[in-house]
Amino acid sequence: MRVEHRPLPPGATIGILGGGQLGRMLAMAAARIGLKCCIYSPAGDNPAFDVAAAHAEGTWSDAAALARFAARCDVVTYEFENVPAAAIAAIEGRCAAFPPARALEISQDRLTEKRFLNDLGIATAPFAVAETAEALAKEAGAIGFPGILKTRRLGYDGKGQTRIADAESLMAAWTAMGGSELIYEGFVPFAREVSVVGARGVNGQKAAYDIGENVHRQGILHTTTVPARLSVKTADAARATAFSMLDALDYVGVMGVEFFVVEQQGEERLLVNEFAPRVHNSGHWTIDACASSQFEQHMRAVAGWPLADCCRHSDAVMENLIGTDIEGWETRPPAAGEAVHIYGKAEARPGRKMGHVTRLTTRCA
Amino acid sequence: MRVEHRPLPPGATIGILGGGQLGRMLAMAAARIGLKCCIYSPAGDNPAFDVAAAHAEGTWSDAAALARFAARCDVVTYEFENVPAAAIAAIEGRCAAFPPARALEISQDRLTEKRFLNDLGIATAPFAVAETAEALAKEAGAIGFPGILKTRRLGYDGKGQTRIADAESLMAAWTAMGGSELIYEGFVPFAREVSVVGARGVNGQKAAYDIGENVHRQGILHTTTVPARLSVKTADAARATAFSMLDALDYVGVMGVEFFVVEQQGEERLLVNEFAPRVHNSGHWTIDACASSQFEQHMRAVAGWPLADCCRHSDAVMENLIGTDIEGWETRPPAAGEAVHIYGKAEARPGRKMGHVTRLTTRCA
Repeated sequence: MRVEHRPLPPGATIGILGGGQLGRMLAMAAARIGLKCCIYSPAGDNPAFDVAAAHAEGTWSDAAALARFAARCDVVTYEFENVPAAAIAAIEGRCAAFPPARALEISQDRLTEKRFLNDLGIATAPFAVAETAEALAKEAGAIGFPGILKTRRLGYDGKGQTRIADAESLMAAWTAMGGSELIYEGFVPFAREVSVVGARGVNGQKAAYDIGENVHRQGILHTTTVPARLSVKTADAARATAFSMLDALDYVGVMGVEFFVVEQQGEERLLVNEFAPRVHNSGHWTIDACASSQFEQHMRAVAGWPLADCCRHSDAVMENLIGTDIEGWETRPPAAGEAVHIYGKAEARPGRKMGHVTRLTTRCA
Repeated sequence: MRVEHRPLPPGATIGILGGGQLGRMLAMAAARIGLKCCIYSPAGDNPAFDVAAAHAEGTWSDAAALARFAARCDVVTYEFENVPAAAIAAIEGRCAAFPPARALEISQDRLTEKRFLNDLGIATAPFAVAETAEALAKEAGAIGFPGILKTRRLGYDGKGQTRIADAESLMAAWTAMGGSELIYEGFVPFAREVSVVGARGVNGQKAAYDIGENVHRQGILHTTTVPARLSVKTADAARATAFSMLDALDYVGVMGVEFFVVEQQGEERLLVNEFAPRVHNSGHWTIDACASSQFEQHMRAVAGWPLADCCRHSDAVMENLIGTDIEGWETRPPAAGEAVHIYGKAEARPGRKMGHVTRLTTRCA
């Protein structure tokens, strides 16, 4: 269904599925431009509830609760991509939902995602799927080892991934990860990882922030540095790739696209690792280094407002605060240009994203 | 009572008296650093409620409701200075409240305020008070005309002020404004108005943002431009004045100090117009041009956290959106470096502060 979507007036209510830190930062950005938010999330630690005008607790399978929630909203959006298709269907009967369900469906399955990208002529890591461990080991051998065996669905922050050295370890990992559909990806000898945080409005307008360079630790984003070390030509190509994906999906909202940069004979080559149909951790620096953040941009898009300019006023390094990294900030004086963000989660479990710090490295440093 | 005040941990609750745009921006800044807010305000249009974890409606004279509110908070602060002394007393029996009550009391009365300033050796406009219109006209004559007759209490945004050309019009204005206690202020032929937004922490640490230059229209702040046109020497003197006031009041939190700059024989002379024991409209630009805004700074101070560095990364012009200025932003694409803030108020009455726009005039412009 193509929804005719006039700009919502200030005071309108944006529904957000998911009550974590992305929902929280989305709600704060919406408030900045006069929009109210209503959050829907399963019971638990939902830090987004604390900054939204309204919230509702419910499961992803409670179609009646989702329909009641949708009836309170002028438009609905998502803070994460693993919302079940049935939940989206329960919403879409009542009110417009952005980004489009197809973008979520594609990104929920690594195989569908890679086929979508390859069909657009976008390079990815070589990959293989098969019905049996033996067949996959053979396919993987054709791609080459090492590689990574991943669950096709519900992986994030390095979860559901096993590094594979050879056919034998692939067979062992297949058994250990048994029960899930799996995909083997050939290892990409990348020089660095970068990401484009782009946006598309209801009228097809597109915009992208400057490209950030990402460093992961134990599968979790550790830092994003802007600007990325990238030639102008490669940066333009990365943006163009993201824009072609946004158009192909008739997308509305912010999307994060992660790239591997491979250096071959002094040339930079881009492969798309994955995309997220939502605001992205590698775009958190935009809160502090741009006049309008990725969170505001997303809310503008789903509310049918014109997109904001993505101009960056400062160089920046964003560092995630994982687990106990969050401790002690109440006694630590921030340095010049240092902006601390604490998500208000109750418990600092290992590997849990508890906050981030953005350091502006020009002018204020 | 001197309160021993350890840094509150993230997750603690800051109470805010007042539910307007300043309370709203305070609550959003608190959320950024992981603090929860509970807002207390009389029934009505309270846009701060939409971004706070909790709120309570009640009047300023309902001591029982105020005490219940205070019992839910770890510390209480104010979004405006005209909180009645009895309300503060009802709070202070239950939990710490910052800024100190004395700062509010002094700023609530233009006469007390001027005497406080003059006692610190800080220059103000010449002023006179008297029991009768005749006596005041005589005193005013000694100061000189023109001048401004002001109510001592409850004036804001140019309300409760009448311009006085001569003794005769003073007598007429006295009658028209009858019933209130009045103060006559000699007209200051200022070259410009500037303000210092300064802060003091529980441990006496002080910090101030770069000085802004203010333009008023019909008594309401229209724009603040940073940096202000001011010599380094005068800027230092303005900051030192604000710091002496903060220390004299054993202040905790952010304070706005408005200055007149008078030019005499090529020299700049400073007079304090008034101060506000709270975050200040002339400091709104700090949201977009500094790593930590005046709102975060205030929350840091009242929560007992170290103050943030006040470094400014961009030049900026903040423009208030008054009344119908707020219309049409949902269809207007923001320019590079333009950050729109909409307060979420229901009705755009004339003279009402509905939002503001900050334009970053370096790098992004």
